[in-house]
Amino acid sequence: MLFSRGFPRISRTGLSLYQWRYSCLPASSSAFAAYHQLLCNTKPIINSSALNKYVTGHTSCGFFHEARHLIHHNATSTVEDQSDPFSLVADELSLLADRLRSMVVAEVPKLASAAEYFFKVGVEGKRFRPTVLLLMATALNMPESMSSADRLVDNLETQLRTRHQRIAEITEMIHVASLLHDDVLDDADTRRGVSSLNSVMGNKLAVLAGDFLLSRACVTLASLKNTEVVSLLAKVVEHLVTGETMQMTTTSEQRLNMQYYMEKTYYKTASLISNSCKAIALLAGQTAEVASLAFEYGKNLGLAYQLIDDVLDFTGTSTSLGKGSLSDIRHGIVTAPLLFAIEEFPQLREVVQRGFNDPADVDLVCLYVNFMLNFYCLPFVNSLCYAFLTCCVTLLRIRIKFCYIFL
Amino acid sequence: MLFSRGFPRISRTGLSLYQWRYSCLPASSSAFAAYHQLLCNTKPIINSSALNKYVTGHTSCGFFHEARHLIHHNATSTVEDQSDPFSLVADELSLLADRLRSMVVAEVPKLASAAEYFFKVGVEGKRFRPTVLLLMATALNMPESMSSADRLVDNLETQLRTRHQRIAEITEMIHVASLLHDDVLDDADTRRGVSSLNSVMGNKLAVLAGDFLLSRACVTLASLKNTEVVSLLAKVVEHLVTGETMQMTTTSEQRLNMQYYMEKTYYKTASLISNSCKAIALLAGQTAEVASLAFEYGKNLGLAYQLIDDVLDFTGTSTSLGKGSLSDIRHGIVTAPLLFAIEEFPQLREVVQRGFNDPADVDLVCLYVNFMLNFYCLPFVNSLCYAFLTCCVTLLRIRIKFCYIFL
Repeated sequence: MLFSRGFPRISRTGLSLYQWRYSCLPASSSAFAAYHQLLCNTKPIINSSALNKYVTGHTSCGFFHEARHLIHHNATSTVEDQSDPFSLVADELSLLADRLRSMVVAEVPKLASAAEYFFKVGVEGKRFRPTVLLLMATALNMPESMSSADRLVDNLETQLRTRHQRIAEITEMIHVASLLHDDVLDDADTRRGVSSLNSVMGNKLAVLAGDFLLSRACVTLASLKNTEVVSLLAKVVEHLVTGETMQMTTTSEQRLNMQYYMEKTYYKTASLISNSCKAIALLAGQTAEVASLAFEYGKNLGLAYQLIDDVLDFTGTSTSLGKGSLSDIRHGIVTAPLLFAIEEFPQLREVVQRGFNDPADVDLVCLYVNFMLNFYCLPFVNSLCYAFLTCCVTLLRIRIKFCYIFL
Repeated sequence: MLFSRGFPRISRTGLSLYQWRYSCLPASSSAFAAYHQLLCNTKPIINSSALNKYVTGHTSCGFFHEARHLIHHNATSTVEDQSDPFSLVADELSLLADRLRSMVVAEVPKLASAAEYFFKVGVEGKRFRPTVLLLMATALNMPESMSSADRLVDNLETQLRTRHQRIAEITEMIHVASLLHDDVLDDADTRRGVSSLNSVMGNKLAVLAGDFLLSRACVTLASLKNTEVVSLLAKVVEHLVTGETMQMTTTSEQRLNMQYYMEKTYYKTASLISNSCKAIALLAGQTAEVASLAFEYGKNLGLAYQLIDDVLDFTGTSTSLGKGSLSDIRHGIVTAPLLFAIEEFPQLREVVQRGFNDPADVDLVCLYVNFMLNFYCLPFVNSLCYAFLTCCVTLLRIRIKFCYIFL
């Protein structure tokens, strides 16, 4: 399986590798701050020799030294380059939102209403994926040869930017399609702070709207006339299904296995953003090496994103997340914070095996997880930092300027 | 909408245009014979001037005269060329079935079981679409320049045949994916004479298995490296969804409208085979005109297929169809035989509007429809003949030899 071939194994051996500046804050603010910082300007304090040990699996020690050198070398410009990544592409995101609404228009009125449900103003979500992809496109679309003001080059750049925007739109359509089907599978009542589509229009229309968005995404993909990119993103849909099925059919042994959890997380969350990042690189005509780095960046960002999301499911509120708190555990889904808590408090294993039908068990688990997140969170932070650092280091290899948008 | 732009309007004006040799047989045998003959060797008795009137919308009168001349010219070889089309590609279909089983293997055991459910030996269905597509491939893959035994040409032919087989496999995967989702939407208990997947493994796995098959179809499509073909077949998925939504959201007025019914039928049934036929032509490097004719052939064959299927829903048995008789009407779906019956017996309109909740209404409608099919079936046969004849005439324009496989 993909994960066992290429993914890092996350264990407690790296427990003392990092310090986390927010580890002593109350859990909810800590997690939210981490999430915010992930997208803005956090730099964890690095023990480079330990990181080298982790990075060895992917690349050479020399590479990491080079990366650290680059961070140091550019340190003076860090402050001036720090920006809110969302504001950098805000105008473009607004156009993208308009285009998405026009792309999902269907001939049959009910299907049109269902398909546009999550593209309407106010329920478009964070638009995290389009933001990352447009920024990735900016980073990769600046080869030296395009520095002149030549009109032809300008035209090519505009065409390439349009194709990159299509990737961002396709990614968002695949993402929303998966949300629609997931909500049917989970009998979800809410999504993005509003009623879920299945609860408003019924399961049948939600399933059909999901299929419709997938087919529109595929038609748009075909219009890009790059079969490697079609193949990449078609594979993502398979991964989304695989991840969802893994979650649905988990055995009691798999449920307590971190490796299984991370593999499922790759399929369910990280595959879409990682393969889309790679698609951006391929369309930009970058080398296979850069495309692979773009993939690695997306994969690690996706994993980090999900880990934070899992924390927020324990600590967040309905307002901050747009969904009910503890929704995972109430559906019997065991996520990273609980898996780490079990490592520290093995007695929780028995509680998990009882299946959370008793509200008292849910309360007990929350108590332990929150305790761990507040006062004992290093194992979790370890894996988060690893994923985050890999993102940053990968980015450094792609383009320093882009790296500092995120760092 | 597509239908209003290009489709024939079917009305009672052509009621006396054709004679149908089976019109005096009992309904079930008549319908089954028509279905059988559609694929084998029936030639309706033609009133050419009337047909010209119909065909004018698509092509010139001269074209039809040419077609009739070709039928006459080749009449002497008809008997020796008559073959069971299924047996002509039986070996290839068997290999295709094996390949389909290997293509839908998934990493997660439950997903693998769900995805392969309708590809297992014994529940593969009639394999009508792969048969038609492989025969179409044979017909289109015989340009004069390939008559030599040249090794290079042989290689090219083999490669092209492999690509055509992929189209047949993709089409079957899209078809089965739509069946899986349709069965969830309809809460169906049986399919192909066995329990439906949703009734065996639940709605969730059936939805996911459908998504999985769509993504595998898309990955295979991408491997053909022809973006026009990707676009064609991605559009089909959208059509399937559109047709299903039209059926689900029909107003009482639309329910009694033949134009609406035929449009829905194109989306639900004919789009897949017509666009797949076109894909076969495009991959064979045929001209846009031939590709368009291949599309027309598939469209009319698909419509004829559905019209016969609608008759069988009234007259067939569970054994012959692999699904419960009267399943359409029991779900409140009004199909062509009933629409024709309403034209003859307007009092049925009121029964339809009551919604078939009363079993006595179902019995009453069946009585009228069967009466019409047995003794008064010309309007229905008229449209069937039209669709069938358009198939044949289109085929004649493509290749005489292939035409006689079906005629």
